[in-house]
Amino acid sequence: MESNPSEIIFVGHCPDRVGLVACITHFFASENFNILDLAQHSEQGRFFMRVEGKGEGYSQSIQDWKRKFYPVAKGLEMEYTFHTLSDRLRVIMFCSKTLPCPLEIISRVLSNDLPIELLAVISNHMNIAPIVKQLNIPFYYTQTEGETSHFEEEQLGIIQKLKPDMVVLARYMRIMSDHLLQLLAIPVINIHHSFLPSFIGKNPYEQAYQRGVKLIGATAHFVTKDLDEGPIISQDVVQIDHRFSVSDMKQLGADIEKQVLATALRKFSERKVIQWKGRTIVFH
Amino acid sequence: MESNPSEIIFVGHCPDRVGLVACITHFFASENFNILDLAQHSEQGRFFMRVEGKGEGYSQSIQDWKRKFYPVAKGLEMEYTFHTLSDRLRVIMFCSKTLPCPLEIISRVLSNDLPIELLAVISNHMNIAPIVKQLNIPFYYTQTEGETSHFEEEQLGIIQKLKPDMVVLARYMRIMSDHLLQLLAIPVINIHHSFLPSFIGKNPYEQAYQRGVKLIGATAHFVTKDLDEGPIISQDVVQIDHRFSVSDMKQLGADIEKQVLATALRKFSERKVIQWKGRTIVFH
Amino acid sequence: MESNPSEIIFVGHCPDRVGLVACITHFFASENFNILDLAQHSEQGRFFMRVEGKGEGYSQSIQDWKRKFYPVAKGLEMEYTFHTLSDRLRVIMFCSKTLPCPLEIISRVLSNDLPIELLAVISNHMNIAPIVKQLNIPFYYTQTEGETSHFEEEQLGIIQKLKPDMVVLARYMRIMSDHLLQLLAIPVINIHHSFLPSFIGKNPYEQAYQRGVKLIGATAHFVTKDLDEGPIISQDVVQIDHRFSVSDMKQLGADIEKQVLATALRKFSERKVIQWKGRTIVFH
Amino acid sequence: MESNPSEIIFVGHCPDRVGLVACITHFFASENFNILDLAQHSEQGRFFMRVEGKGEGYSQSIQDWKRKFYPVAKGLEMEYTFHTLSDRLRVIMFCSKTLPCPLEIISRVLSNDLPIELLAVISNHMNIAPIVKQLNIPFYYTQTEGETSHFEEEQLGIIQKLKPDMVVLARYMRIMSDHLLQLLAIPVINIHHSFLPSFIGKNPYEQAYQRGVKLIGATAHFVTKDLDEGPIISQDVVQIDHRFSVSDMKQLGADIEKQVLATALRKFSERKVIQWKGRTIVFH
Repeated sequence: MESNPSEIIFVGHCPDRVGLVACITHFFASENFNILDLAQHSEQGRFFMRVEGKGEGYSQSIQDWKRKFYPVAKGLEMEYTFHTLSDRLRVIMFCSKTLPCPLEIISRVLSNDLPIELLAVISNHMNIAPIVKQLNIPFYYTQTEGETSHFEEEQLGIIQKLKPDMVVLARYMRIMSDHLLQLLAIPVINIHHSFLPSFIGKNPYEQAYQRGVKLIGATAHFVTKDLDEGPIISQDVVQIDHRFSVSDMKQLGADIEKQVLATALRKFSERKVIQWKGRTIVFH
Repeated sequence: MESNPSEIIFVGHCPDRVGLVACITHFFASENFNILDLAQHSEQGRFFMRVEGKGEGYSQSIQDWKRKFYPVAKGLEMEYTFHTLSDRLRVIMFCSKTLPCPLEIISRVLSNDLPIELLAVISNHMNIAPIVKQLNIPFYYTQTEGETSHFEEEQLGIIQKLKPDMVVLARYMRIMSDHLLQLLAIPVINIHHSFLPSFIGKNPYEQAYQRGVKLIGATAHFVTKDLDEGPIISQDVVQIDHRFSVSDMKQLGADIEKQVLATALRKFSERKVIQWKGRTIVFH
Repeated sequence: MESNPSEIIFVGHCPDRVGLVACITHFFASENFNILDLAQHSEQGRFFMRVEGKGEGYSQSIQDWKRKFYPVAKGLEMEYTFHTLSDRLRVIMFCSKTLPCPLEIISRVLSNDLPIELLAVISNHMNIAPIVKQLNIPFYYTQTEGETSHFEEEQLGIIQKLKPDMVVLARYMRIMSDHLLQLLAIPVINIHHSFLPSFIGKNPYEQAYQRGVKLIGATAHFVTKDLDEGPIISQDVVQIDHRFSVSDMKQLGADIEKQVLATALRKFSERKVIQWKGRTIVFH
Repeated sequence: MESNPSEIIFVGHCPDRVGLVACITHFFASENFNILDLAQHSEQGRFFMRVEGKGEGYSQSIQDWKRKFYPVAKGLEMEYTFHTLSDRLRVIMFCSKTLPCPLEIISRVLSNDLPIELLAVISNHMNIAPIVKQLNIPFYYTQTEGETSHFEEEQLGIIQKLKPDMVVLARYMRIMSDHLLQLLAIPVINIHHSFLPSFIGKNPYEQAYQRGVKLIGATAHFVTKDLDEGPIISQDVVQIDHRFSVSDMKQLGADIEKQVLATALRKFSERKVIQWKGRTIVFH
């Protein structure tokens, strides 16, 4: 995960037409920039591209790249960003009483397995506080009884102070209001404990037991105003059988939840995820 | 899969209480019957058990076993059946234009991989007819335009003549009416091309594409009057990504569909499946 | 799977350097050729690329494409091929007594799920003969007792007459001699019934039972003179537990074998597989 | 995971014969003990059984159970143990520089997901020390340069002082000598970063890259004097493709390693694992 300013990531999308790959890769070749990984995709008349590579012999800033690429992008009506590989995503994590997911994220940050900086943990329960504090990560308790507007104001204050690039809900058991989502104006990723669109809403494992499904799973998705309907980033399932009680499902399910959430965060932090019309492009 | 009359399968269920396993296994021990495999399960106050084993030194008929066990069962209010391992399940298969699932079942019968006897194939398309006929399996074409009552009468006639133990719908694209289901009074197993309860009804792959899921799957279930709501026997999924078009999903999905359906049929034909209150017990 | 001459596949590889993607995509753009799918990969100083796309407004033959691309390729020291999407791979299948794999391939050909033409089936057992013949696929029995040189000469004769693009060994239980492999000079793909490199050689399921592994699997690979050491194309496994006897493993393993072999054949027939230094590039 | 003294686990094995299940379940019924879960298995003339259940109306100690069962066991030549569900396994964890596995175990202990008590962490690197110490788990650094006998004596001292039920090697990168294993005389579980028996010994991911496999995996096994040859408890794999570098494999592989190790520890701590002749029985 080491990187230097000459290693950059480009992500862009624009209306599809003949010659796009040629046009963009020509730009990079003219900058003597060596493409190490190129991924592209087209759907419904839209073209998406991610390039990872290394400048030879010199380095230029993200601002330089953005400026130089501007004329190319303008002609293509392209939305685009540049990042250096060493940019770490700045993240705030929300959680509640259930620990496996938040501890997974913390463990991965500690073992340098996720290229993110964990700015703070916000919870409506105190049980994770001692662990978080001992590890020198700022912890905020926000009580979520009573008026939504009240505690969301408190949460907004913390977020506006710390200025994260994104928020992750690691089994945070409250719905984030559309009002707060709009004020945040940054991506929010949630983990839902079912293979969506099955078992939307409360108590998915109880629903799964009732329906008698033979697999349980988890889904990481962007949070939108429509509960459990946001664009899906990653999903996985595990086989179960009739012997699994709801409580067995919860235990086994937690393993999938944390794995799926970690995968989504890894992909997102590597700038490999693009939202488009209710779907996501998640490059390899 | 060879067997002889001394190898039998017992399946039973009754209200749960202390000492059931002891009571039933004592019966088998007193018959000098060696238990090779015993599986039991309790849920919601009900006890379920399957025993596979081998009588030592002598063989007795299924009728003998049923008669001898009757006093034990009566005391326990148990519903039970005995089978010999060599009983092959008699099956009629329904299909439509899509071939992978029906060809899978036929291939497995030909290669002796499923302990079933395929009595006939009924389709509302002619494309599978040459293959089925060349393999000397009776084929019936039933046109399914127009009045449901009309063609279902025809289907009922075939089934009543051939007297199968069960019917399998191998991507048969018509709904079987509740009326027909009741007249048949035998189990009907269907394969649905999604991981139920997601994407009920028509065109599940189109629905999956729209929703942007990252996995697709299939579900084998008993058919009940409630469309796609019957007890689930087996399910599986496979990972996809944004690059999969609906047509890619159909191609990859077919691999899962046929695997899941074959698994359900294998388990059912080995007398390992018990329906109970909208769920299934599927012993290993 | 329908296609027309204007839909083509390009596959090439050459020494890696800056600007390759730009250079090749520029060529296609200058031909007014719309890239629908582009995959590229670099390893160990080698660059690999596959392009699938559609010419706009006109069609040119594979020979035209090859000729026009020649100057580009020469400068890059590139090995390359062009195919039309409608080219079906011409295949001869070898098998023995075990039926699931060969029946899987036949079923997929019948249901139009593999873009291949099955020229003939060659077996050293007669059990598949009736099925193959009834389906109007030429069948050849070659007895494999006695001198290898004798029966391989016979096999070579059949292959040289039918001129396939490749040979698939669908659980053919004889080793193909290096001598025959060299005379054939076409790719030969084999399915091995273990997750290689575990359990090389004879009776992998017996070996798996002895070792007490908790998963079994299968591997499709190119055949080279080194038994079970050829480049791997696809692999998969399934979980088992202590209850699986060798015979249970064989039954469950057959499901994986046929799936893995079908996947390898699909990828190969879509021109997505490149062998390189004991490894394979298998594009999505 | 709460339990009371009336909830017990029985595990036993003995030579196989007719009537064993009947005999043992009769004993429990006569004690008015309600069997909640019964699992049994026979192989190679040996019978294995695990019973989990609840005494009605009274509780007796493990010693009482052992004493009462003794006459039954003696007649059957059975080796057996009794545990209460509330017994937590006392564990010492060894690790080295690689953090995901040890942090996984710690996270699961913190979130009450593993019924174990972590007595201490021993490492030959200091990087995990701050985390372990902050969480109030005793940490021991043992330098492993130089004479094996020297540092193993140190390790033995710690273990003999703390008296664990078992030792887990969570990516500890030194071989434990047969001498130490014999002195410990308790089970030692290791996680190996490949799907054994593939890629035994050093650098399995490098070996996997060279061989060009399409899946990578991990194996949890009992440690014996034969390196990487001990009885396997759990295994899993994940699909990769040609794009995975050795470093990508290490990152993705870590996810499998920690999952597989956690599964093995969970099963072992629930008294569901029996070693027998180089294989393991791992009850559901």
